[in-house]
Order: sequence, then C-alpha cells, then structure tokens
Amino acid sequence: MRNVLLRLRYDGTHFKGWQRQLDQRTVQGELERALGQMFGQDYRLATSSRTDSGVHGWRHPVTIITSKPISISAIQRGLNALTPKDIAIIDAQVVPLSFGARRDAIGKTYQYHLYQSLHQDPYVEPYAWRISKPLNLDAMRKAGRFLIGKHDFSAFRASHCDARSPVRQLHAVHIGRENRHITITVNGNAFLRNMVRIIAGNLVEVGVGRFEPDWMAHVLESKDRGEGGRTAPGRGLFLLDVSYPTELVASGAHEW
Amino acid sequence: MRNVLLRLRYDGTHFKGWQRQLDQRTVQGELERALGQMFGQDYRLATSSRTDSGVHGWRHPVTIITSKPISISAIQRGLNALTPKDIAIIDAQVVPLSFGARRDAIGKTYQYHLYQSLHQDPYVEPYAWRISKPLNLDAMRKAGRFLIGKHDFSAFRASHCDARSPVRQLHAVHIGRENRHITITVNGNAFLRNMVRIIAGNLVEVGVGRFEPDWMAHVLESKDRGEGGRTAPGRGLFLLDVSYPTELVASGAHEW
Repeated sequence: MRNVLLRLRYDGTHFKGWQRQLDQRTVQGELERALGQMFGQDYRLATSSRTDSGVHGWRHPVTIITSKPISISAIQRGLNALTPKDIAIIDAQVVPLSFGARRDAIGKTYQYHLYQSLHQDPYVEPYAWRISKPLNLDAMRKAGRFLIGKHDFSAFRASHCDARSPVRQLHAVHIGRENRHITITVNGNAFLRNMVRIIAGNLVEVGVGRFEPDWMAHVLESKDRGEGGRTAPGRGLFLLDVSYPTELVASGAHEW
Repeated sequence: MRNVLLRLRYDGTHFKGWQRQLDQRTVQGELERALGQMFGQDYRLATSSRTDSGVHGWRHPVTIITSKPISISAIQRGLNALTPKDIAIIDAQVVPLSFGARRDAIGKTYQYHLYQSLHQDPYVEPYAWRISKPLNLDAMRKAGRFLIGKHDFSAFRASHCDARSPVRQLHAVHIGRENRHITITVNGNAFLRNMVRIIAGNLVEVGVGRFEPDWMAHVLESKDRGEGGRTAPGRGLFLLDVSYPTELVASGAHEW
C-alpha cells in the first residue's frame, strides 16, 4: 500500500466544482474516471479542498491510497494521458500512509483575481472578476487588515457552509496590482465555504468607495452574513497552494 | 452610410474558425448574430482574414458598413453585450467608405506559440503547441532567415488554398523565448492558407534536429508541400495585428 500525493492544476471554467455529481462535469468526476481506468477499484481518493463551480486549481493536493505497483512517474504520465485537457497532474510523490491532504494542511493560499476594464477581454474574463469602476487599493489594504488574526468568520461563510466552527485564523491578506490586474492573496489555516469570495466581494465594496475601510471590522463583528456585500464570482478564484510540514512532503517534491 | 472598423479579440478554442458554417460555432456566425440584433439587415460585414478552426484573434480587423445612426461607442458597448464571452470588440473607429479591411492591409502579423514541457498545462494547452523535445532556437532562427523576402511559397500552402498567386513577401521572422514559452512572430504583406502553421511546423522540425537549417531553403525551392513537415496545430496561432496606412485609420484609433 502506498499513499500518493498529487498536485492538480485545472481550469475550472468548464467544471461544476470539485465534488462528484450525477450528470455534472466535475473535477472529482473526471479524475475518478481516469483513476478507475488506471487502478480499477484499487484506490481511495481524498482531497484537501472542495472547490466551487468555476473555481480554478493551481496546485490542488489530493491523495490516492493504492496497492497497485505502478511507479510514481508512470502514475503521473498515465493520469495526464487519461484526464481531459483542462486537468493536469503537475506533481506526484509518495507520502506516509498516515498523511491526510486535509488534516495535515498547515496553510492554504487562495488568490482572487480582479481586472479593471470597461469592456470584457475574452482571455481574462474566465479567470477574473471585471470591475468597471476605479479601485482604491489603499482603502482595500486597510480594510483587509481587520481580517488578519483568529476570528469568528460567521459573516464570511455561505449559508450552506457545513463547518462545525466558524473560527478561522487568517495569516495574511495581500493586495497586488499589475496594470489592470489586481490580485487578492489570502493565506490562512483553513477557510469556510465561500469565505475567500465573500472577502473579495467586501474588499471590492470598499475599493469602489461604497464603504470606508473600517466597515470591514463592523461586518466581522456582526457575525452576520447579511451585513456584507455580494459573494465575488467563482471564476476569479484560484486555489493556489496548500502547504504541509516539510518532514511529510519535502523529500519527494519535484515540480515541473 | 458609415464604414466602421472593429478590432476583434477572441479565444478561438471553441470556434470552428472564422467563416460562417451551418451547425458549427464560428466567429463570423456569432458576430453576425449580434450584428443582426443591433442593425437588422442594415449592415455589410467584411473581414481582413479568415482564421482556421482553433486559431485565436488578438486584433482581428473587420468592417461594417451601415446606415444606422448609432454612435461608435454604443456600437462597441452594444456588440460587447450581445456577443458571447469569448469574443470582444476591443476597438471601434470610423474609416472612409472606400476602406477595405483586406485590400488596404499593408502588413499582417501572426504569432505562433510553442511551449516545452513533458506534461500538458491546462492553462497553456489551448494556446500553444507543446513540444517535449529540446528546441535549438539558433538553428530555427537560421532556418527562418531563408524565408524572408519575396518568394513563391507553394511549399507552404494548404492543398485547399484558393489564392491565385503563391507569391508572398515575408518581412520578418522573429523567434523569442520566455522560459518554456517560445514564440514565432511573422510579419508579411499577406499569407497563404495555413502558411504560418506550415512555417511553424517546419521550424520545429529544424528545432528538434531532424533537419539542418538549410533544409528550409530546399523546401522553399521545391515549391512542393510534400517536402515539408507537418502543419502545426491551429490552437498555437494568433492573428496578432493587421496594419493599415495611418492616413486611413490613425485618427480614430483608441485602444482600451
């Protein structure tokens, strides 16, 4: 038996999110189709995260426990041949059998992409939320600072979020700009359902000047989803990376 | 009556090329659907180029002659609202009634994208031809030089090319690299059917070492399509820009 950690990169545009559903194209569904062809029934799949419809994966970790004696490089090459073009396995390594992609995560990084334009750009539209008004990044940065630390994020979770506790620890909120492209990068220990998209939606409310930066503190304290702005659309969100203790994953790491 | 020059940007991935076909999704088909909603029967559409299936447009010029009194900015905004997400009108300006997008072109620039990787990347795959072997760019540059100038490009045209003359003038072939991404940029007065994709295919033959650079001169002199390598896939090709005499188009030019 081996436990294999795979890093998935996928363009979420044509997926209804991670989780397998009947009659819907999902990342899990397409991956399991390929896994079935390679391993038959002899595998168990687990994921670090369940991304929503349209959300993209950059280095999304999943694990496969299998007893099939297939080399790591053959697993990677084989799955890349079997999965559709919008999913790739960009890294594969053996991890301890006890390793859990979700349980052992020490940090997750998500990135939300905005772009400022009066008109849509077909090359950007599937990967970013277009904002036609100017954005005040300094105000957004000030607002973002209120979120850093350990908080009850009840005002930043979807109504259908099934996490037991609404408390999460946010380590960093970074807002960067390259010409018309603005990125909101958030790093934390774990995230509630829609949390990053709600953060992005609220930051945009501040960025366009609808609210002052300290409104974000008010929303956080309210613990009420009804106080915040809209949930930013899924297509702007990337699950960038999930980090693990180096003693568990460092040895076999090999990017390409 | 006005003649309006539009610049189209489209992601060619989900189009069967430019030209309208029954039961196929094409750029012209989708654009004409939007034009019909805006202008009814009162328009005539002409294009500088007919791109193949999967080929992308960056600043593809088309003209519309119409008598409808709609402002230029309303035409651009309206068509952007009516066209699907993978087409955008990135520029619109009035040109003389005598202006022809094809006839008045003084230069066309195409760019062919390659990327070097053992594995596919879902974000790159729709926009580039993946080459798993190392490419010798110096050899490719030497080979490309044989093509510059006015030549009979019969060895570089598709069998279904309907141009009367096979003579074209190539002004420049530039090969650039940024990490794993390699671009072949060609500029010329006009191009035969599949010409850029055949140039790219032959350059890759030289790049991987299958032939020496001067093989390109041999292929050109043969005037025989059978002498060259394969036609590079459409998804790596971008119609980057078409240039016109400044006195015809400069006045109204406004990028966004």
